[in-house]
Amino acid sequence: MIALDKDASEFLYLQVVDLISEQIDKGTLRPGDRLPSLRRLSAKLEVSIPTVRQAYLELERQGRIEARPKSGYFVHAKRLNPLVSMKCRNCKPMEVHCQNLIDRVYVSIHQPGVLPLGIANPSMASPATKTLHRAMKRIMARAETRALGYAPSYGEPGLCRQIAYRYLNQGGSVDPNEVLITNGGQEALTLALKSVAQPGDVIAVESPSYYGLLELIESLDMLALEIETCPIEGVMLGRLDKALRTHRIAACMFSSSINNPLGCLSSDEYRQDLVTLLEKYGVPLIEDDVYGELHFDGPRPKPAQFFSRKGQVLTVGSFSKTVAPGYRIGWLLPGRYGEQARKFKRAMSCSSGLLQQLTLAEFMAAHDYDRHLNRLRPILKQNAERMAACVEQHFPADTGISRPRGGGVLWLEIAGRIDSGALFDAAMERCISIVPGNIFSAGSRYNNFIRISYGHPWSTEIEDGIATLGRLVRQQLQMAA
Amino acid sequence: MIALDKDASEFLYLQVVDLISEQIDKGTLRPGDRLPSLRRLSAKLEVSIPTVRQAYLELERQGRIEARPKSGYFVHAKRLNPLVSMKCRNCKPMEVHCQNLIDRVYVSIHQPGVLPLGIANPSMASPATKTLHRAMKRIMARAETRALGYAPSYGEPGLCRQIAYRYLNQGGSVDPNEVLITNGGQEALTLALKSVAQPGDVIAVESPSYYGLLELIESLDMLALEIETCPIEGVMLGRLDKALRTHRIAACMFSSSINNPLGCLSSDEYRQDLVTLLEKYGVPLIEDDVYGELHFDGPRPKPAQFFSRKGQVLTVGSFSKTVAPGYRIGWLLPGRYGEQARKFKRAMSCSSGLLQQLTLAEFMAAHDYDRHLNRLRPILKQNAERMAACVEQHFPADTGISRPRGGGVLWLEIAGRIDSGALFDAAMERCISIVPGNIFSAGSRYNNFIRISYGHPWSTEIEDGIATLGRLVRQQLQMAA
Repeated sequence: MIALDKDASEFLYLQVVDLISEQIDKGTLRPGDRLPSLRRLSAKLEVSIPTVRQAYLELERQGRIEARPKSGYFVHAKRLNPLVSMKCRNCKPMEVHCQNLIDRVYVSIHQPGVLPLGIANPSMASPATKTLHRAMKRIMARAETRALGYAPSYGEPGLCRQIAYRYLNQGGSVDPNEVLITNGGQEALTLALKSVAQPGDVIAVESPSYYGLLELIESLDMLALEIETCPIEGVMLGRLDKALRTHRIAACMFSSSINNPLGCLSSDEYRQDLVTLLEKYGVPLIEDDVYGELHFDGPRPKPAQFFSRKGQVLTVGSFSKTVAPGYRIGWLLPGRYGEQARKFKRAMSCSSGLLQQLTLAEFMAAHDYDRHLNRLRPILKQNAERMAACVEQHFPADTGISRPRGGGVLWLEIAGRIDSGALFDAAMERCISIVPGNIFSAGSRYNNFIRISYGHPWSTEIEDGIATLGRLVRQQLQMAA
Repeated sequence: MIALDKDASEFLYLQVVDLISEQIDKGTLRPGDRLPSLRRLSAKLEVSIPTVRQAYLELERQGRIEARPKSGYFVHAKRLNPLVSMKCRNCKPMEVHCQNLIDRVYVSIHQPGVLPLGIANPSMASPATKTLHRAMKRIMARAETRALGYAPSYGEPGLCRQIAYRYLNQGGSVDPNEVLITNGGQEALTLALKSVAQPGDVIAVESPSYYGLLELIESLDMLALEIETCPIEGVMLGRLDKALRTHRIAACMFSSSINNPLGCLSSDEYRQDLVTLLEKYGVPLIEDDVYGELHFDGPRPKPAQFFSRKGQVLTVGSFSKTVAPGYRIGWLLPGRYGEQARKFKRAMSCSSGLLQQLTLAEFMAAHDYDRHLNRLRPILKQNAERMAACVEQHFPADTGISRPRGGGVLWLEIAGRIDSGALFDAAMERCISIVPGNIFSAGSRYNNFIRISYGHPWSTEIEDGIATLGRLVRQQLQMAA
């Protein structure tokens, strides 16, 4: 082992991190290998036990190793190596064109009898059906005719208050009057993007990026610029800095807390740095935070807006991923762009569903939302592990599997020549819907990736579905060979 | 009396129409005057009784005279004379700017304790609360967790089918797969406009025009061109023809059946002519048909789309005006623009509320929708008459009052110098919301007009509110004098 440079300005624990990372990259430490105990490595490197512990925690945070209770630390069985596979240097702003495939993905998930692994629907893993239905019946009894009337354009005040309270408990100060209720998170993204950018403008996105963002950019006649993205934290800030100097970027649209499709969760420090960088350039950030409540461990990641001083961060939230997709209730914290966002809300859809807003306000006030999320998160975490294990079992051994730290989707990289569009078609013939990877990029990258959802109650149908997908992948690889 | 020219090519009854109209215009026949009986006029003019009857029917259709049971025909007590007051010759395409006032109008209607005459909410005149709530409870019991999930992007098939059936009963052939469910009519207008026009394009609108259309045009960075509008039928086709030759009009956006705010109802012939004219120029028509089911008499006006051969008519429908504003469920029949409209729907809001869609499908299938509309229409008609009578009683004698043939609003023209924005403020101080006339025009015409709604159960509060408004109008006129 190489000795550490104890006089270097870098923290000692980071040197330990580099050391272990290097050994994993070289293959000295292989997936599944056990790492030396804290005591042993501390003795070997002649550093303190806390330093080694800090290094292991950092490696765990990066998803490179995992702690197994009472067994110690192990190299993750498999992991994406994005710094190789997700390069997108020399990217140029480009128009988005993958409409036909997106249309087919949307249609596929509602076909009768189809296993809907193509829809990100995490709340269904533990639905709050009875509690929500009961709340809605109470509202119908109480509000009677009023429940049928128009909600205020910008949102039912009771729901805006509940949303603001929730942010308060998470350490952020949000004025209930600033909360703009929308028809799901997607409309909030629309209003946000229209509020900060014009047709023809360049919008920086992650790579891979949720296809709904790409399609929105196209619909508003804007251009997408993909920024290289680390599957541990998110957009690489060095690359973003360079892009900000090279291109006239009108806005960034990132899933800054829990990423879709990567499933990664950035640190508070990262989000602080991101906001600082963007504020230096005066570029607004639209953060798609619809998965923020679905972190598996630790406290809820703080929205990037909490780190902003200039009001240039617009935060998109939603109940679609956490509890009731069909209610179509999301919201926007529009920062300094409130006036524009409210104008577009009026012009584009008037207002959002009143009955659902009243029901969700009731559901939150009774702490049922909290109880539901506390039940849902560990189920999602377990589903993610089960699905990853299934993929490991049935897919080719060199398949890259994301290690989500929240949300409801796995992102798989198939090694070798594969066309995810053809795989989508083959899967649909077997009544399995998936999302092909190439729609997560304006430049049709990720053609050898697929996204599958674990946001359903676990079942043998899902296990069988993964096995079928694995067979289809092997068939495609053989045909290509 | 002038003798008729019985050799002229024009129908005799139309000559009688002209004769009477002239006498009304000159003041020979004054508001409230009784017209000669059929027999008497027939003898005087030496034409047959059926000819006179046809002339009277036409004058009644035009809103110039009214039949009173067992009393004969009378000149309408008051009426707008749009051909004088609503001129907008030499109009130019212009940007729309009345955001602040529109914002205040939207906020005003939800303030506690305010008499909401500023909201077009006709279904509330006879709400279907119990039936709808029951239907929704049945859906919750039957669909359980599915009721919380995502609806298909383009709409729940059961509801699309019901909507298509309804058109079939009205003589139109609509494929259920073409019905695109939206978040209320306003989103349908957004999708329609985005599907046929680009930023910078010129959109022809009625004058006056529903402010939601104007705000939408502004939000999509387009320009509005106001076309002179007859309060009997709608946009004057001669003027439209001229505008089509003079300007590059990308699309027309008209409320072609029942107009908002005019309340007029065009004839089938008119809509046929309108469509023929536009198809000659290859210009798409977006018809805002959200009031089409709320005609007071006769059969439901056929959507203009039924007269189209080229698929260039996009029809917007909604349940917001007829039964459940807060459900936010509308639809678009996109004609030949289905692909674009569906793409924008996905990109801008993903899908619409599932529970409401299932509930409305159930409500329609059980014929409850028909029963509800049959109950609602006569109540609205009665409310319109009561409110017009109230206005006649309390407003200055020369106030022009629209004679709605459907829908839920009255359009009032105050003779003399009045600022409807100031009137709006003064009314809000008395806890009455109205809509100031100037937001119905891109060019801030109609500053001496207001729109008030009769879509609430009739009450003494409403009568008192109209009396208060009348006093405020008189005060303003005195201050201006």
